[in-house]
Amino acid sequence: MDEKYYILNTKTVIDYINSSIDFFDKNADYECTEIGDGNLNLVFRVKDKNTNKSLIAKQALPYVRAAGEDWPMDIERGEIESRILEIEYNLTDGMVPKIYKYDKEMYVMLMEDLHDYIIMRYGLLKNETYPNFAEHITEFLVKTLLLTSDVVMEHKEKKTSVSAFINPELCEITEQLVYTEPYGDWPRNNIEDNLKEFVKEKLWKDEALHLEVAKLKFDFMNNAQSLLHGDLHTGSIFVNQEDTKVIDPEFAFYGPMAYDIGALIANIIMAYISADARIEEINVKNRQKDYLLNTLEKTVDLFQEKFLKLFDTVVTDDLAKVKGFKEYYLKDIMINSAGVTGLEMIRRTVGFAHVKDLDGIENDDKRIKAKKSNILLAIELIKNRYETIDGKTYVDRLKKYEK
Amino acid sequence: MDEKYYILNTKTVIDYINSSIDFFDKNADYECTEIGDGNLNLVFRVKDKNTNKSLIAKQALPYVRAAGEDWPMDIERGEIESRILEIEYNLTDGMVPKIYKYDKEMYVMLMEDLHDYIIMRYGLLKNETYPNFAEHITEFLVKTLLLTSDVVMEHKEKKTSVSAFINPELCEITEQLVYTEPYGDWPRNNIEDNLKEFVKEKLWKDEALHLEVAKLKFDFMNNAQSLLHGDLHTGSIFVNQEDTKVIDPEFAFYGPMAYDIGALIANIIMAYISADARIEEINVKNRQKDYLLNTLEKTVDLFQEKFLKLFDTVVTDDLAKVKGFKEYYLKDIMINSAGVTGLEMIRRTVGFAHVKDLDGIENDDKRIKAKKSNILLAIELIKNRYETIDGKTYVDRLKKYEK
Repeated sequence: MDEKYYILNTKTVIDYINSSIDFFDKNADYECTEIGDGNLNLVFRVKDKNTNKSLIAKQALPYVRAAGEDWPMDIERGEIESRILEIEYNLTDGMVPKIYKYDKEMYVMLMEDLHDYIIMRYGLLKNETYPNFAEHITEFLVKTLLLTSDVVMEHKEKKTSVSAFINPELCEITEQLVYTEPYGDWPRNNIEDNLKEFVKEKLWKDEALHLEVAKLKFDFMNNAQSLLHGDLHTGSIFVNQEDTKVIDPEFAFYGPMAYDIGALIANIIMAYISADARIEEINVKNRQKDYLLNTLEKTVDLFQEKFLKLFDTVVTDDLAKVKGFKEYYLKDIMINSAGVTGLEMIRRTVGFAHVKDLDGIENDDKRIKAKKSNILLAIELIKNRYETIDGKTYVDRLKKYEK
Repeated sequence: MDEKYYILNTKTVIDYINSSIDFFDKNADYECTEIGDGNLNLVFRVKDKNTNKSLIAKQALPYVRAAGEDWPMDIERGEIESRILEIEYNLTDGMVPKIYKYDKEMYVMLMEDLHDYIIMRYGLLKNETYPNFAEHITEFLVKTLLLTSDVVMEHKEKKTSVSAFINPELCEITEQLVYTEPYGDWPRNNIEDNLKEFVKEKLWKDEALHLEVAKLKFDFMNNAQSLLHGDLHTGSIFVNQEDTKVIDPEFAFYGPMAYDIGALIANIIMAYISADARIEEINVKNRQKDYLLNTLEKTVDLFQEKFLKLFDTVVTDDLAKVKGFKEYYLKDIMINSAGVTGLEMIRRTVGFAHVKDLDGIENDDKRIKAKKSNILLAIELIKNRYETIDGKTYVDRLKKYEK
């Protein structure tokens, strides 16, 4: 621990900020609140009530409350997160919070305050819709993924970046929780009682399924294609009616593009399945379902459209310019994205970390039914991923399991 | 440069060795010769004439004679090479020279002297045969490749190893010389005049071929499957009638297993094509061709046999144990190995770095004919790699182009 380190509080953070960066007015009237969950980080929102200008100060704590966590990993993570956010900010013209400063001695990140945004998962659970989301998130995906790949980056620089962002601990979490444990009787699985027999039958006994999961797992572990966000679900996305911001890239590493794309698609599908089961009022239900179906289809198709378009203007590798290559490359990405979609849907239903979309369905019968549909659709996406390329195919498959 | 560094000579190297390691007898009668090519390294063979015990001392020079080389890269390379040799030594029970010591201050590697071995390429050009070679080299391949993959290695440790052995400069050389330049009019290509029209027609105009090369190139750049040797041609292999040793792993990095396997297969095929064109005496020619054909078939088949056998005893990843996975995984390796075989054959005929096997055919007509056959067979291997899995298929394809 550096000698200069001290734990900030709602009083000292103001002086700290003003001695670090030139942000607030001299005559600012400060309001400061601690808004973190207090486990790994302190998160302060500091606002000038005169101008409404505000920022976030996020400080890593010198201890970890949760047992068994590895301290040195956590303390470094802030720096890596700030570097990834800077890269993503530059690649996407500001689709992540702006980092004002990262202080290596105080482990403090000073960053843009997204106070007028909401976490997308919670917005969707309040039956809100975000009409620009598909446009925005496909922009984010295409830019962060394509521009960090060998198609575009100078190859030596890209390899240095692969090495710098290798992330063994957090990748191991994904390898276990997403690619391994849901397919057997592992202690961390979280399966509600009424689902257990179904899970044993459908997920644990199916050797053909396990083989497909193994193929996808080795792609995840070996394919250093692009700098991924690594955890791109609707809980890592801030939205409002105008705008979209992606946060929390702590799982970032060089991996297959499909991993980000599939995580996102899966969470749109689970929001749809949830809406169908949760919402009573028929007009609201239909509007929400239409919105999510449309968002699903647009996300899948716009990604591909934008990918092919951007490819031509940014490609640098001489062989990647060859006729037919970009279509081959994209198709491979989409095939594996369908596989990851299925994996994410399954692990969020029976694995360690669930989503509120499904667990929050209050009616027991509806919840079990929704989870079963979710699992069956996921298996189909994994097994038939070679035939799951365009948005319409996703929509058709989803509608099939709705009945 | 470290202050302790000084350039060794045939006198001082003896004291240096004896002050570094306990190797020679007190009463040794030394004979010392410098056997390096003198460009990047000094290479001393030091022998005790009483006992015939000997070793090699390889010292990196503090300057590089070849223009344009990057000095700091070269000086570090010795350390990486010694680490790779140690890893390979342990994985293969001594199929690479033993490293006695690496001295970071003097940039000296003290290592086993392979004085009773010959570089395989030159042995084959002298029409020698090595009956145990296929057995040995498949042992080397299976052990170094499978045991450094995610099938076996603890995944966090493997990622740390991927990061440690990232090799941007030397991978770039391969990406350019093997995967890019032979397919267009690049200044470093080395094409003899009588072959130019043929190369333009067959290699530069074929867009379908370029697409397959692009797919293989991106596999090479992104697939961090195993710790490769990275340059496994017959010039990197020492042989005699009993034994086989692999040297010079300076191109080592985490890449697709196919890259090592294909480089090796290609060099056996080129030795065969060379033997057919070079050797006048019919009995010698037939014996040499039979030996090489048999070695080709055995290398391809034994690798697969041993791979599947070892897999079961060493697999640790839970999903890799799934029924059907090892066959899927191996087939993917073999498909890409056929592709790499073709790439290596082409680049050694028209690219920057040739092989003596082909360039050394003295008769002009025979040499041009051999090079053309080599290129046509290579194209077939690249394009039909999905149907080039077993040894017999390689043999059949090779025989077709012999006519």
